[in-house]
Amino acid sequence: MPHVVIIGGGFGGLAAARQLRGAPVDVTLLDRRNHHVFQPLLYQVAMAVLSPGDIASPIRWILRHQRNVEVLLGEVDRVDPGGKVVHLVDGATFSYDYLIVAAGATHAYFGHDDWAAHAPGLKTLEDALVMRRRVLLAFERAEREPDPARQEALLTFVIVGGGPTGVELAGALAEIARQSLAADFRHFDPSSSKIILLEGGPAVLPPFPEPLRDAARRDLQRLGVDVRTGTLVTRIGPGFVETGSSRIAAETILWAAGVAASPLGAALGVPVDRVGRVFVQPDLTIPGHPDVFVIGDLASLAGPDGRPLPGVAQVAMQMGAHTSRNIVRAAAGQPLRPFTYRNLGDMATIGRASAVADLPVIKLKGWIGWLAWLFVHIFNLIGFRNRIIVMVQWAWSYFSYQRAIRLITGK
Amino acid sequence: MPHVVIIGGGFGGLAAARQLRGAPVDVTLLDRRNHHVFQPLLYQVAMAVLSPGDIASPIRWILRHQRNVEVLLGEVDRVDPGGKVVHLVDGATFSYDYLIVAAGATHAYFGHDDWAAHAPGLKTLEDALVMRRRVLLAFERAEREPDPARQEALLTFVIVGGGPTGVELAGALAEIARQSLAADFRHFDPSSSKIILLEGGPAVLPPFPEPLRDAARRDLQRLGVDVRTGTLVTRIGPGFVETGSSRIAAETILWAAGVAASPLGAALGVPVDRVGRVFVQPDLTIPGHPDVFVIGDLASLAGPDGRPLPGVAQVAMQMGAHTSRNIVRAAAGQPLRPFTYRNLGDMATIGRASAVADLPVIKLKGWIGWLAWLFVHIFNLIGFRNRIIVMVQWAWSYFSYQRAIRLITGK
Repeated sequence: MPHVVIIGGGFGGLAAARQLRGAPVDVTLLDRRNHHVFQPLLYQVAMAVLSPGDIASPIRWILRHQRNVEVLLGEVDRVDPGGKVVHLVDGATFSYDYLIVAAGATHAYFGHDDWAAHAPGLKTLEDALVMRRRVLLAFERAEREPDPARQEALLTFVIVGGGPTGVELAGALAEIARQSLAADFRHFDPSSSKIILLEGGPAVLPPFPEPLRDAARRDLQRLGVDVRTGTLVTRIGPGFVETGSSRIAAETILWAAGVAASPLGAALGVPVDRVGRVFVQPDLTIPGHPDVFVIGDLASLAGPDGRPLPGVAQVAMQMGAHTSRNIVRAAAGQPLRPFTYRNLGDMATIGRASAVADLPVIKLKGWIGWLAWLFVHIFNLIGFRNRIIVMVQWAWSYFSYQRAIRLITGK
Repeated sequence: MPHVVIIGGGFGGLAAARQLRGAPVDVTLLDRRNHHVFQPLLYQVAMAVLSPGDIASPIRWILRHQRNVEVLLGEVDRVDPGGKVVHLVDGATFSYDYLIVAAGATHAYFGHDDWAAHAPGLKTLEDALVMRRRVLLAFERAEREPDPARQEALLTFVIVGGGPTGVELAGALAEIARQSLAADFRHFDPSSSKIILLEGGPAVLPPFPEPLRDAARRDLQRLGVDVRTGTLVTRIGPGFVETGSSRIAAETILWAAGVAASPLGAALGVPVDRVGRVFVQPDLTIPGHPDVFVIGDLASLAGPDGRPLPGVAQVAMQMGAHTSRNIVRAAAGQPLRPFTYRNLGDMATIGRASAVADLPVIKLKGWIGWLAWLFVHIFNLIGFRNRIIVMVQWAWSYFSYQRAIRLITGK
């Protein structure tokens, strides 16, 4: 039977593996982590609402009943499309008949790698725990800080980037400061914290239609977030952010701006875009190798409007399923079909009970948007257990205003 | 008002702080972590049943409504009982009128500190995550290991120490291997894993009465645990454990044997026992300093049978509450009262539905023991949220045989 190797157990790789259930192929899924993360809720781990275990499941557990799939923990070093071999960092090699590269993307700093130490980003569970740690430690240090200026810097939180992640982080952080921590400190009022959201473009949530962008901005401001659009960050250092000639003293800076594709894309030896995404052909293969498919955040493909498809879960999942159907066709001697994207809508949440949803037939905001967001996200959580737990967790968090998972762990 | 400083937010320190609710004193609770851990369930985090957030809560959250208490994050360096000052590692100092030292204990290696790298112990959330990581990684590596001898070593788990922690770890690990992982691997049968429990004494669970010790041993054996009593570990190195002249090849070794008290005890300048516990007077003060109290795992006090009271939660909690009552009496000019321990019973669980409980009026085992264990432990979990979540988690884990929090994170 043909051997399909899938690199990456994110939304794309997992959708590809699931689509191959019962197909006459042997599948090897390689990932350098043992778990799939439900990325849209990662910010809730970073903001101490959910535990890592609520939004992540072992990949081999998700695929345990699919007997034609083996899941292996391993980090891919490079791909040799000529020899049809995948090389791991530890020296192991895997031959393939068909390869699906779904290695994803991580956050990037536009060439300012020194900013990384001062402004952590959010792509993995570990990233989320680092953010949680920094935010909670800032409040702890503020409680012991006698100097008012230093205390103010400890209670100033800057979020760089006004996309969905930045908006969600800012909204959640504002709620923590204003509500969850209200009774916890004796030497300052947590609701006096400053939460500043910096966005270089003219509006937050750039891909959304204007009425929803405006609604998001108003909701953030109502939560007490200082939203500054058209503001480019020029420098980040220990305890400060500079935007042109002005400087913000902030001990906690969270990065929600740039993205860079996995270096595995460029290593394929085919053209990539400015952030390292592979220019794929309409059938998601790479030029000259009809047996190598690149999907998800690592792929650059123009959508119906001519702009590249966004790096979101639904694009990756649709690409994964499509590619597996193409592989089954190819194995049967049939031609590959081009990929077409069906946009089911975009969503972003702003705090506990407000969200914007840009759906094909309707645009939602406020409470209704939030309910839609809740339904879609809980429905899509992989693993029955997670859904129940997350529901209980949220219900409790919602009614009590508490963030009970406020643990500082690590280091 | 008199200033009471409490060092440590474990069971003892927290009970002391809570007992001072409404008392005419100002309380400062210092801890180097921001969270209280429900230690009896720590093994469930180590064995991927529960998340850290299920068994830990921020100390300041627990005490948020107690307005006479401030909770500060900080590591104590030393105490100066003459000057009545506590010095932190970061240079800060706190004067006190009354001091409660509840700094606890950690695991120790009987002078073999080099064993620590190969056989992690279990005292903090971080320790539990290290154990979880090692156990899960061993299975992952076994899936990719072609050499049968090395694969066998990867699937051999040695637990050193047959006290409650060792018994609980062994039982949970056996269930994971035999049940939870059953469908997950393609290149070995997880139920072929070897779980070996080593105990130097003649029986597991030494403090329990003989019928319960025998029941625990039988239950472990029924789960497939190889219980070896009267077996002293003489050497531990990378991938092996030696017991006299025999050697076990095992990639995963878990330490549940020795304990050492916090060095803060010895630093008080008063006599300590072999593991560093302070010999306290009947009123839990130290000789020459009627304003310094040592409680919990850090205190050595003979019980009614002449043997030192065990380092368990109920001893610490009773000592904490008693000490706070004594402080209120002392502040009112009344004499201190001696501490008397009221034993409410001992419990240990062996896997999913079996436990032994040695209660004052009755001894329980099997199913009934397990229900008693479940009730007592969930009832005592601090924070309403945790109880509900842990119940749901357990119900799911129980009915599905799944350990869904099998995440390998960190490093």
